[in-house]
Amino acid sequence: MKIDGTPYRSVWVDQQDGWSVRIFDQTRLPWALDIIRLTGVNEAAHAIRSMQVRGAPLIGAVAAYGLCLALRQDASTAAMERDAAMLAQTRPTAVNLRWAIDRMLTRLRNTATGERVRAAYEEAATIADEDAAMCESIGRHGVELIEQAASRTGRRVNVLTHCNAGWLATVDWGTALAPIYMAHERGLDVHVWVDETRPRNQGAALTAFELGKHGVAHTVIADNAGGHLMQRGKVDLVIVGTDRVTRTGDVANKIGTYLKALAAHDNAVPFWVAVPSSTIDWTVSDGVTEIPIEERSGNEVTTVTGRALDGSIATVRITPTSSPAANPAFDVTPARLVTGLVTERGRCAASAPGLLGLFPEQA
Amino acid sequence: MKIDGTPYRSVWVDQQDGWSVRIFDQTRLPWALDIIRLTGVNEAAHAIRSMQVRGAPLIGAVAAYGLCLALRQDASTAAMERDAAMLAQTRPTAVNLRWAIDRMLTRLRNTATGERVRAAYEEAATIADEDAAMCESIGRHGVELIEQAASRTGRRVNVLTHCNAGWLATVDWGTALAPIYMAHERGLDVHVWVDETRPRNQGAALTAFELGKHGVAHTVIADNAGGHLMQRGKVDLVIVGTDRVTRTGDVANKIGTYLKALAAHDNAVPFWVAVPSSTIDWTVSDGVTEIPIEERSGNEVTTVTGRALDGSIATVRITPTSSPAANPAFDVTPARLVTGLVTERGRCAASAPGLLGLFPEQA
Repeated sequence: MKIDGTPYRSVWVDQQDGWSVRIFDQTRLPWALDIIRLTGVNEAAHAIRSMQVRGAPLIGAVAAYGLCLALRQDASTAAMERDAAMLAQTRPTAVNLRWAIDRMLTRLRNTATGERVRAAYEEAATIADEDAAMCESIGRHGVELIEQAASRTGRRVNVLTHCNAGWLATVDWGTALAPIYMAHERGLDVHVWVDETRPRNQGAALTAFELGKHGVAHTVIADNAGGHLMQRGKVDLVIVGTDRVTRTGDVANKIGTYLKALAAHDNAVPFWVAVPSSTIDWTVSDGVTEIPIEERSGNEVTTVTGRALDGSIATVRITPTSSPAANPAFDVTPARLVTGLVTERGRCAASAPGLLGLFPEQA
Repeated sequence: MKIDGTPYRSVWVDQQDGWSVRIFDQTRLPWALDIIRLTGVNEAAHAIRSMQVRGAPLIGAVAAYGLCLALRQDASTAAMERDAAMLAQTRPTAVNLRWAIDRMLTRLRNTATGERVRAAYEEAATIADEDAAMCESIGRHGVELIEQAASRTGRRVNVLTHCNAGWLATVDWGTALAPIYMAHERGLDVHVWVDETRPRNQGAALTAFELGKHGVAHTVIADNAGGHLMQRGKVDLVIVGTDRVTRTGDVANKIGTYLKALAAHDNAVPFWVAVPSSTIDWTVSDGVTEIPIEERSGNEVTTVTGRALDGSIATVRITPTSSPAANPAFDVTPARLVTGLVTERGRCAASAPGLLGLFPEQA
């Protein structure tokens, strides 16, 4: 997608040297557009762990490129397995991370040591390209929902989204935002309610940045506001991304998603989840009991980072110093609250029969 | 309630001079414990307008004392009526403000000019004492819910609350927090999940401050986290305050309350609302369609204020400067989602028959 008219992806190989990996430091957005150069596997792991890159699909792609950087340093099987295991442990909830690393290893284990670096870059590029294509396809299947809402209401379509499932969370297009970008390209009048998404404010910082830079109408709201807006008829549909979907259609996503699904259900607002197939965990049936929920540092709750009056990026504490904070990073929305899933193969019900109808090879 | 062992109210007459009025500057909490001395009616009006004091019951009490200060300057009827009208306009939506001023005027109009100052301080003290007693009574009726949860589970009771309905919002005890303080006094093991309550962070700033200073165990969470905690069995009951309750039991309260009520309902967690009878609007039957929702400045969403590393109080912007924000300040929780109401006369169902059972004079 575009930043002030220039097309970008969220991760790319440096055009000059042909091997180092470029990302945006997403912890600095929207205040600064800092492009980071990753030159080793530890830098890649740090980028994932510190959330300079985040979003399940992007994490997978950066981990794949991280393995490329690892192999440049040591292409032996022992080092490769060790570095792959280290990368796989950088974030616990997203399934794409392990999926991408497994895919890299499947190819590289069957590749001679001397060929591994070239093969790794090739496979990582394929993963990135496939992710972009998958997201574009999700956009094509999802835009129909916005077109239907426009036909039904005859006015601007208001879509609510939570967190950032845009192009910054994937390689390009995004998952939840892909249908919105597609609607924008097709000239539909679409407006996005952007949940700020505490505690890390990915909505306020990243989704608002993305949409604004690409020229899509949007309004930032506190996470608390969505239920009220739905109650007053100001939301036509909700589209969110996901970090892991069970074979039965339960949806793990950024903390607070479940609350929006409840409000959508209570107000008969369609609640859709954009799901690249790499995000489906076919081994898990009960999301609430089986998906591990990452507990992150309470500091993310007790402090907020933003741009101070003098233009510097500053962090302020919003709680008394003696008050502890808890910070579960994800929650699980039961399939019963999900209107449907938008995958790269089309839309389906959030259920095992629904998913297996699109992915019969998983039966 | 106590701050580090010393009992305080949220408004009091200075013990030294016997006439000036003391309040905390709540815009500075929890970063600084600034006690302000009010010596004239204009200072009292400013304190209300600038939200140095907030919370409907506290606003009423401060307005009453503001009229005392006015009368010390000029006890004539003309001045009294003019100053009372000015005070009544500081927060025109707060019901208790007009109620407290009307009550003061009813007494003072029938009092000789030379007696007015003494009578005014007496009436203001009665208003403050009655508010504290009403809240204490809500505490006595509400603590039984916590005792029942303790008996049922045999372990620490986890209560979730939203916004600040504590002693800082009233004269003492608070509404939603009164049962929690009462449980603490009775030696029950109670722990409070404190919703930070974006956009103004009254939970993170005021509720966490109150509970911490009084010694009540608590943990601050993002507003997004409550649903997940309920899903995992970590919340035994929810208690919130309210800005207006309809005769049918619909509850207007701080934005985001509705989302917590939905989550409580979905997880069979009891959802209680602490309601001083002054908050019941007997003229309104349908909260969702009849209660006007205040739309506040988007700046409250796009910026966050807290304590910077250097100890100063700083404001940071969390959104791109070009992104607009919307800021509805309240939402309405339909009575069907409310387990019950805790009033100063006891507990009842959130319904017309429930409320009329406790307040038959309103039939």
